[in-house]
Amino acid sequence: MNNPMGKVSVQEFEHIFESVKNWGKWGPEDELGTLNYITPEKVRAAASAVSSGRRVSMALPINKVAGPDNPQPAVHFLSQGHDVPVDSSKVRFALDFMGMACHGDSHTHVDALCHLSYDGLTYNGRQADEVVKTTGATALDITAYSTGVVGKGVLLDIPKLRNVKWLEPGEPVTRAELEACEQMEGVRVDEGDILVVRTGHHRRRQEIGPWDNSPPPKGEGKAGLHIDAIPWMHERRIAAFLPDGDGETVPSVVAGITYPIHPLQIVAMGMLVSDSLQFEDLVAACEEEHRYEFMVVGLPLRLPGGTGSPWNPIAIF
Amino acid sequence: MNNPMGKVSVQEFEHIFESVKNWGKWGPEDELGTLNYITPEKVRAAASAVSSGRRVSMALPINKVAGPDNPQPAVHFLSQGHDVPVDSSKVRFALDFMGMACHGDSHTHVDALCHLSYDGLTYNGRQADEVVKTTGATALDITAYSTGVVGKGVLLDIPKLRNVKWLEPGEPVTRAELEACEQMEGVRVDEGDILVVRTGHHRRRQEIGPWDNSPPPKGEGKAGLHIDAIPWMHERRIAAFLPDGDGETVPSVVAGITYPIHPLQIVAMGMLVSDSLQFEDLVAACEEEHRYEFMVVGLPLRLPGGTGSPWNPIAIF
Amino acid sequence: MNNPMGKVSVQEFEHIFESVKNWGKWGPEDELGTLNYITPEKVRAAASAVSSGRRVSMALPINKVAGPDNPQPAVHFLSQGHDVPVDSSKVRFALDFMGMACHGDSHTHVDALCHLSYDGLTYNGRQADEVVKTTGATALDITAYSTGVVGKGVLLDIPKLRNVKWLEPGEPVTRAELEACEQMEGVRVDEGDILVVRTGHHRRRQEIGPWDNSPPPKGEGKAGLHIDAIPWMHERRIAAFLPDGDGETVPSVVAGITYPIHPLQIVAMGMLVSDSLQFEDLVAACEEEHRYEFMVVGLPLRLPGGTGSPWNPIAIF
Amino acid sequence: MNNPMGKVSVQEFEHIFESVKNWGKWGPEDELGTLNYITPEKVRAAASAVSSGRRVSMALPINKVAGPDNPQPAVHFLSQGHDVPVDSSKVRFALDFMGMACHGDSHTHVDALCHLSYDGLTYNGRQADEVVKTTGATALDITAYSTGVVGKGVLLDIPKLRNVKWLEPGEPVTRAELEACEQMEGVRVDEGDILVVRTGHHRRRQEIGPWDNSPPPKGEGKAGLHIDAIPWMHERRIAAFLPDGDGETVPSVVAGITYPIHPLQIVAMGMLVSDSLQFEDLVAACEEEHRYEFMVVGLPLRLPGGTGSPWNPIAIF
Repeated sequence: MNNPMGKVSVQEFEHIFESVKNWGKWGPEDELGTLNYITPEKVRAAASAVSSGRRVSMALPINKVAGPDNPQPAVHFLSQGHDVPVDSSKVRFALDFMGMACHGDSHTHVDALCHLSYDGLTYNGRQADEVVKTTGATALDITAYSTGVVGKGVLLDIPKLRNVKWLEPGEPVTRAELEACEQMEGVRVDEGDILVVRTGHHRRRQEIGPWDNSPPPKGEGKAGLHIDAIPWMHERRIAAFLPDGDGETVPSVVAGITYPIHPLQIVAMGMLVSDSLQFEDLVAACEEEHRYEFMVVGLPLRLPGGTGSPWNPIAIF
Repeated sequence: MNNPMGKVSVQEFEHIFESVKNWGKWGPEDELGTLNYITPEKVRAAASAVSSGRRVSMALPINKVAGPDNPQPAVHFLSQGHDVPVDSSKVRFALDFMGMACHGDSHTHVDALCHLSYDGLTYNGRQADEVVKTTGATALDITAYSTGVVGKGVLLDIPKLRNVKWLEPGEPVTRAELEACEQMEGVRVDEGDILVVRTGHHRRRQEIGPWDNSPPPKGEGKAGLHIDAIPWMHERRIAAFLPDGDGETVPSVVAGITYPIHPLQIVAMGMLVSDSLQFEDLVAACEEEHRYEFMVVGLPLRLPGGTGSPWNPIAIF
Repeated sequence: MNNPMGKVSVQEFEHIFESVKNWGKWGPEDELGTLNYITPEKVRAAASAVSSGRRVSMALPINKVAGPDNPQPAVHFLSQGHDVPVDSSKVRFALDFMGMACHGDSHTHVDALCHLSYDGLTYNGRQADEVVKTTGATALDITAYSTGVVGKGVLLDIPKLRNVKWLEPGEPVTRAELEACEQMEGVRVDEGDILVVRTGHHRRRQEIGPWDNSPPPKGEGKAGLHIDAIPWMHERRIAAFLPDGDGETVPSVVAGITYPIHPLQIVAMGMLVSDSLQFEDLVAACEEEHRYEFMVVGLPLRLPGGTGSPWNPIAIF
Repeated sequence: MNNPMGKVSVQEFEHIFESVKNWGKWGPEDELGTLNYITPEKVRAAASAVSSGRRVSMALPINKVAGPDNPQPAVHFLSQGHDVPVDSSKVRFALDFMGMACHGDSHTHVDALCHLSYDGLTYNGRQADEVVKTTGATALDITAYSTGVVGKGVLLDIPKLRNVKWLEPGEPVTRAELEACEQMEGVRVDEGDILVVRTGHHRRRQEIGPWDNSPPPKGEGKAGLHIDAIPWMHERRIAAFLPDGDGETVPSVVAGITYPIHPLQIVAMGMLVSDSLQFEDLVAACEEEHRYEFMVVGLPLRLPGGTGSPWNPIAIF
């Protein structure tokens, strides 16, 4: 790890996995993982820090159009319009139906802890084939997060640190950079905080269009975390992680593991992880409000058995 | 209206419609309606009133099983389980797909302002056939609420006032009762507040099972508001309305209009209305916290063109 | 089996299973099973027997309304209507989307051979967990039937034999009855034929309404085959089986096995089986045409990985 | 029309429209249109011409992967696998769910007569806004075709006539070419026949990959019919039209009308039209069987209110 840009071996990956593992920490039946760090007191503190009342959404509009980063577009249909009477009165109702892949690449969503397994085990050491059946998840599903994630969010704006518009695909954000960003912004991410890391993924998408972010040669990849950020997140006792992109650097820095960040966060740490957010409105708000800290509220749908959920988390200043 | 239990005529309905109409009040392009009453200052005040940090969900679990009040069950499928490798590593991902009717009777959801029209017009006097096309809504869609509803919620617990477990289908809650409930609880619903009215719909469902709540003779109906509560909500400048049931008393108190509450709230007032919530956890929390006021956060999905959205609003104490 | 109305043991079931097993008969890679009995010559013969050219559908309308035998109603939405222009011309297109559970109880469908396993094995002795992954079937899927089933169909009308309107739930059709019905009608079901067995399920549904046909005490059950009909179907080398209901007698005649007919037909024999057909139009046509034999054409959708498909098979006289 | 490669005006288009109009021909309530040409006698004749019994599918596999000609990929999910018991026996069932846009570009489907309107009218002069509501079609829906299309098909293989692998996008097939192709093949398309026209669309797709076949500059377009083929189809009293592509030449030969073939066929003539077939297997079979005529069977799903249906039509030799 003294050469953060070099490839990390599976052995090193598994060493980190063991070192950040929270299995059993909150009991054998725990389904909340690092959300346990957010005590009611921390919720109260986050709420009391609201000052202007300004709000911004961190979600993308649900994407109904197929594209290089949207192979499974959401389906959305009017099921009744204002042309159809409900009775003999002048009242009319429009109704609709929506459907979507919960984990679609360009659908802002939150992962349930059952979403991932490593070597046949999920968070807290449960058997993956018991946790997830073909009829849905039987444990660690998204309903474990029914009261949402509410707490203090801290934005680390890496493109600002690097003085670039966005990180290019394949560029990892290291622990050192996260700490440098804290210094630049005058903040410190601490126990129970919600870490918001911006790589500029969405701004790149806005300016040059969507791209296939699967590994080369098929796709171009994406910017995300270096694996050395994981022990740092563990030390800091971060409760939840909200990135643009999905936190993964693609191609991966771990030889032989395409997506190493998710198993470390979700399986080993039991961390609430969200994917495919956008922080363009958030950045503007932070700059105008002169603060990089805010209240975050994210509310998954109560989908029994769900491995994830679309959502629309917001920041409140 | 001096006989609140008698039938109201369409003429009286239309008179109320005109008297509570907010069209043009916030400009011809307004898509927020009564959410305009929630100023940033009110958001700040609601957040600052958080004391214990306790949270409860006001949503029902998404219902995938057909039943008398769920004719269009949600669909939810695993699209990949832990049996399918993503690469040669030990990492596995479970993925799923969900789909649902946004306005399903037993799906907790929020209505967009385009959901309703009266006499061919939606909120702010727009032509319904321009606002909603077969390909989706072109205005007043659910994305108007992208930063959600955040503010002070007040629970009025009518079964507690009446000292019953729940209101029976067909029983309306009048303005007088809402005011009596305020007195009993020592609260006052005021400008920009989020009104949470409990009829005990969900408790009845839990105890005696789901029922068809369409009008007799097909169904049994449901408890909801009396139409005389509407002018009161207008006078009080309520920002949003969260009922169990959906606010409608079925059979309706208006002769010839099956669902008179929705057009008054959504079309005339431009009010954010949510349907099919449950307050069983909320009631317990209110009693234990000794308060009927709390911070509410509700976050619709950012579904472009949507006439509504499933959601999972919470109360924070 | 000398007491066809008594309960059959699992041992007897397994004995029959072994005795009718076609595994390996058409090679280890075979995915057609008993459809192999329908040689091109038999297709030609079935076509050449067409005399009047009359056609009837054996499918039910796709059911979009939840009910006691339709817990997963089909979804069907207009995705564009004639209100939306495609260009500046006067041309307009209406478009729609449909979705359905392939094996829904009241959806006429055909089963793929991967639909069933017994003791971890599918037809031809393949491992079920290799054949069906969470991402779909990898073999024995519905595309094995891409050129459909085409051949000679023979209707055995059991209610006519018994001189009743329909068989009541739980009543099994025995081998002896099938043979008696052949005699009554003056037909003989033979190698490569498509066996159409009517219990009157749909007529009962039309006259007294849909019912929950799961086993008592939850449901009422349904009429179907006795297990002793299976060796007879094997001896006769029947190619395909089209019942109203789904062929199962519920409650089952086999102790401990809720649905014993499907594994014998699909897993052991590799038989094309269709469920939930209706023969009311067919019966009328047979009577008017004075024949119980006709050409059958059934064409599954080419759904890669599908465990079944909705379809609309027809009879041509 | 003496210059078939030049642009045709809307006036000429409307003149053709009037000249091929079958409105009222089979009565004001007719919903079958040109399928009326296929008398039972013609069904019998088509069946009796079956000689080898060989069958080929003319459908594409249902396409679940987004691509340039598949913006709305079909959704297909296992809803239960062999990991989930149904009872205490060794029997296991795999189940699935499928959903699709009925008229998707690369989904083989058949159009209902309500699919199209011209100047506010559908086939037989009905008001389009009465025929198609947002809740589905009320008339001229796909269930009008419940007994399918069965008759004599004739393949006209245009690439063979031109001695090319396929027609390039934008190349129209004229009446003169259709007649030249008849001569080359020694066939004559006549009253009640099913016209199968191959442009080689699918072979091009196989060899150089899928392309966006919308009009330039966005897409590349596609090969199809010249508008002068329409009066010929009318004169010949063709019952149904099965093309690869969808019959439209894109860019269109009619100035200002992007898709002129569909309104002439569906609205004016009331013709059964199918889109996005593939004839690669059919061509091979025709060559080996030394005949360009065969029995065709196409069976739409019985989808009430449907504007179309996925299907899998076959040819029987």
